[in-house]
Amino acid sequence: MRKIINLSNKPYFLSSAAVGGYEERRGPLGESFDLCDDSDLFGMESWEAAESEMGRISLNIALKKAALAESSLDVLLAGDLENQCVASSGGLYTFGIPYVGLYSACSTCTEALLLLSVLLSSGELSLGATVTTSHNSAAERQFRTPVEYGAQRAPSAQWTATAAGSFILSKNKTAGKNVFVNNVMLGKIVDGLTKDGANMGAAMARAAFDSVYTYLSLAGKPLSDYDRIITGDLGAVGSDILCELFTKEIPGAEHIHTDCGKLLYSFEKKNLHSGASGCGCSASVLAAHFLPMLESGRLKNILFLSTGALMNPQSVLQGNSILGIAPVINICSDAE
Amino acid sequence: MRKIINLSNKPYFLSSAAVGGYEERRGPLGESFDLCDDSDLFGMESWEAAESEMGRISLNIALKKAALAESSLDVLLAGDLENQCVASSGGLYTFGIPYVGLYSACSTCTEALLLLSVLLSSGELSLGATVTTSHNSAAERQFRTPVEYGAQRAPSAQWTATAAGSFILSKNKTAGKNVFVNNVMLGKIVDGLTKDGANMGAAMARAAFDSVYTYLSLAGKPLSDYDRIITGDLGAVGSDILCELFTKEIPGAEHIHTDCGKLLYSFEKKNLHSGASGCGCSASVLAAHFLPMLESGRLKNILFLSTGALMNPQSVLQGNSILGIAPVINICSDAE
Repeated sequence: MRKIINLSNKPYFLSSAAVGGYEERRGPLGESFDLCDDSDLFGMESWEAAESEMGRISLNIALKKAALAESSLDVLLAGDLENQCVASSGGLYTFGIPYVGLYSACSTCTEALLLLSVLLSSGELSLGATVTTSHNSAAERQFRTPVEYGAQRAPSAQWTATAAGSFILSKNKTAGKNVFVNNVMLGKIVDGLTKDGANMGAAMARAAFDSVYTYLSLAGKPLSDYDRIITGDLGAVGSDILCELFTKEIPGAEHIHTDCGKLLYSFEKKNLHSGASGCGCSASVLAAHFLPMLESGRLKNILFLSTGALMNPQSVLQGNSILGIAPVINICSDAE
Repeated sequence: MRKIINLSNKPYFLSSAAVGGYEERRGPLGESFDLCDDSDLFGMESWEAAESEMGRISLNIALKKAALAESSLDVLLAGDLENQCVASSGGLYTFGIPYVGLYSACSTCTEALLLLSVLLSSGELSLGATVTTSHNSAAERQFRTPVEYGAQRAPSAQWTATAAGSFILSKNKTAGKNVFVNNVMLGKIVDGLTKDGANMGAAMARAAFDSVYTYLSLAGKPLSDYDRIITGDLGAVGSDILCELFTKEIPGAEHIHTDCGKLLYSFEKKNLHSGASGCGCSASVLAAHFLPMLESGRLKNILFLSTGALMNPQSVLQGNSILGIAPVINICSDAE
């Protein structure tokens, strides 16, 4: 049965970091990123190694901001889109932090923050981190074709973000910190009712709707309690579908909806089509954009739900429907 | 910092199920499996669909044994070896159970049981399940070459089990149930110091040793407290390496060590080489072999650590070292 998990200890955000590539720096949030590398290579020799390095750099920045040594972390939860999630394991093993590997497609950031919150709240662990990454060129050659081939992209296609987002959370309220995870709700797999691998936004919109609808029903609080409902990477196409569902079933929700995939790039850049996607999209936008707004008290109460499309190229070729999932975390600020 | 997580509520095993294919039925544990299909296809048309179906069947059997409806489960944790873990998502979404996707290679069974134990112990969730699967033919064509090509295999190579294991756990002691998770310890990624994709046992042996050594140091109890130290799928080659390390560093541990990968098949069958591997290996051997021994009280206290090799074919081709991980759960029996 779907439940809201109320956390007995509310885990606080100690620090975060957003790292990106060329397109991310050029986008409207570019200035808010901690580090961007215009070469997308981060000093490495392959896109895959670059993704690993980007994750490593982002965790290092978050550790530095929190003035913590890696040895003080009790757990690290991570995931990415590369086959067998090697970007995360390969980039993060040198930290020596107890490790939990996750796969929930582009919803992995929220899944990781959700599980970290429960692990911390249960009391035995004090400090933990999450790292989620994606790399456009690594994803393109794995899921579609190498970018060098110059394949034509569908208008509904999204641009996998070259981005990493890291978060460090503490079990308890910490001096000077005011953003915390209030409660969480696990995602449920929902059939996206599409087999179109170039329209992930549509495939995930129903899962996002299902999660918001269920969460609001279970929480039983008025919509006006929430400042924003933030989805991960529905992009323009998926966001339109979600907002249409909102208008019918949760009137008003469409006015407080925002999507990280729509925020990361400027829509004047036509080749990015429907917007951003990837594990790094919602992670970096939360770190670079929404967390500062919560810290300043501009936002006080948000529903954050990264959205994932559960598929691989072979499953699409074999004619399977694309499945969506959208775990939810309720992030609040007690800033004065 | 690595810690043993003591569970405030000890989650109890309500039921389990082991499902396998042709080789699994022929092996020494074949009689203990709940269901085996000699065609390895489980009525489906592709190996990938067969793996999904196998996972689905195993959860259905576990639900039936526990006399539970799927709607009573609060969480389902699952993972497999297929790219983007589609075997799990594709096979399990019809249950409609809140879902957590995991990737920890062949250690996913222990990772899932570990996280489920913490989720249940934290108090808000009452019932949960784990499902982990692997399929020989799906794995061969994804990681190496389709079996139909008849490629030569190295003597150190292992045979990915066509197997699924499901477990249903309850937050609290339940009438008639006597096997519980006592405490857990997260895995740490350890460099396997090998780049040989045909010798996963060697790559994982160091991670297994690191976990056992750390666990025993932290627990501070004599080795004689434990009936067995059970690794997931080191196979013959990896087990030899681990036992050599035990002999030097934890004398006596080698006498209580067993490996699921060595138990699943008969070693007379030469083409299976170093033994079994895969997410389904340790899961099905725990369900079919060790859990009944704990239920009967023949075993009272075991350390169970599935072992995972974090790599993909491309990461090996790019010259990366194979990384190992081995989360630990301490499973006990209070059978009279």
